Amino acid sequence: MAQLPHAIERLAALLGRLPGVGERTAQRLALHILKLEPAYATGLAESLAELHENVQFCRQCHHLSTELLCNICTNPHRDTGLLCIVEDVPDLLALERSGEFNGLYHVLHGVLSPLKGVGPRDLTLEHLQTRLDAQSPHEVILATSISVEGEATASYIQNLLRNRPLRLSRIASGVPQGSDLEYLDQGTLGRALRARHILRD
Amino acid sequence: MAQLPHAIERLAALLGRLPGVGERTAQRLALHILKLEPAYATGLAESLAELHENVQFCRQCHHLSTELLCNICTNPHRDTGLLCIVEDVPDLLALERSGEFNGLYHVLHGVLSPLKGVGPRDLTLEHLQTRLDAQSPHEVILATSISVEGEATASYIQNLLRNRPLRLSRIASGVPQGSDLEYLDQGTLGRALRARHILRD
Repeated sequence: MAQLPHAIERLAALLGRLPGVGERTAQRLALHILKLEPAYATGLAESLAELHENVQFCRQCHHLSTELLCNICTNPHRDTGLLCIVEDVPDLLALERSGEFNGLYHVLHGVLSPLKGVGPRDLTLEHLQTRLDAQSPHEVILATSISVEGEATASYIQNLLRNRPLRLSRIASGVPQGSDLEYLDQGTLGRALRARHILRD
Repeated sequence: MAQLPHAIERLAALLGRLPGVGERTAQRLALHILKLEPAYATGLAESLAELHENVQFCRQCHHLSTELLCNICTNPHRDTGLLCIVEDVPDLLALERSGEFNGLYHVLHGVLSPLKGVGPRDLTLEHLQTRLDAQSPHEVILATSISVEGEATASYIQNLLRNRPLRLSRIASGVPQGSDLEYLDQGTLGRALRARHILRD
């Protein structure tokens, strides 16, 4: 069995640790990088080496940022009375893309998951409490995902905030736009039925 | 629309140039790397920076190598009378995994493709000729892929070698092992029928 040069094997092994990149894909990517102009590999190397120096988490909402506070927290046009709690940065980005939300965020950086050993202390919940003490928004929106873990995390936060005088809401669950009922899972359909709204009574 | 820190966007843009990595995947990978321990990013950066220094192409067969000649060409147990022509390094690796071939290789690093502007001079064909002048194997196996471009390249090489006193062969095409005829494309089935071998006459 022919071995590839160590430098390729090492690169492939590192790439193989990324999510969704299997052993074969990692090798293919490493070979592809070798065929691109050397400036690509150098540029990627520089970009990776600088990554952790140049990116930090926002002190207020834990979004990614180059400064102490991110560009959402420092934006004077955002509604500070609305706080949306999300699991992770891609969720925040997705909500921003929707263009429907103009408040602030709080990024948990995970969900409660006893199986994976993720407890309340592993999320940014302690800081959420001190933040609510200081800022008292009028509404907190729980936008964790509609999954077992996302629901459990939402319940946990609901309980955590039970004595605070604020409106607490949860994003709606139902049939996604543009999708055929025929192909939807029964859980989603069940939710859509239970959460139906009356058009005429 | 929230922008991500430039360092993340830059990393995502570079990752997005890899095959099979779209814009969204690239961003997800960049965020994932940020969450891994910083040593991962540093290690990957080092690995990339060293890549082109530590890997070269074998002077004889154009396989990847750390030395002037690769470990297949320098292996005294390989049959130098058999030469297998492949499109690219992953094809060579796949043939090695099959364990069925003990000769030497010649890696073309591409296939003829007028549409993509790849002509005979872009492949390692000139060197194949000088190599055959010097080594004269008794058989050359054309193992380019069974596709329009792979077949055209095989034909071109067949013509190129028409005056050389050697056996020229082409890998077989047909129904792959373990596959249902029902789900096979008609081209493969047609080939399998035309290339049928007689069991009793």
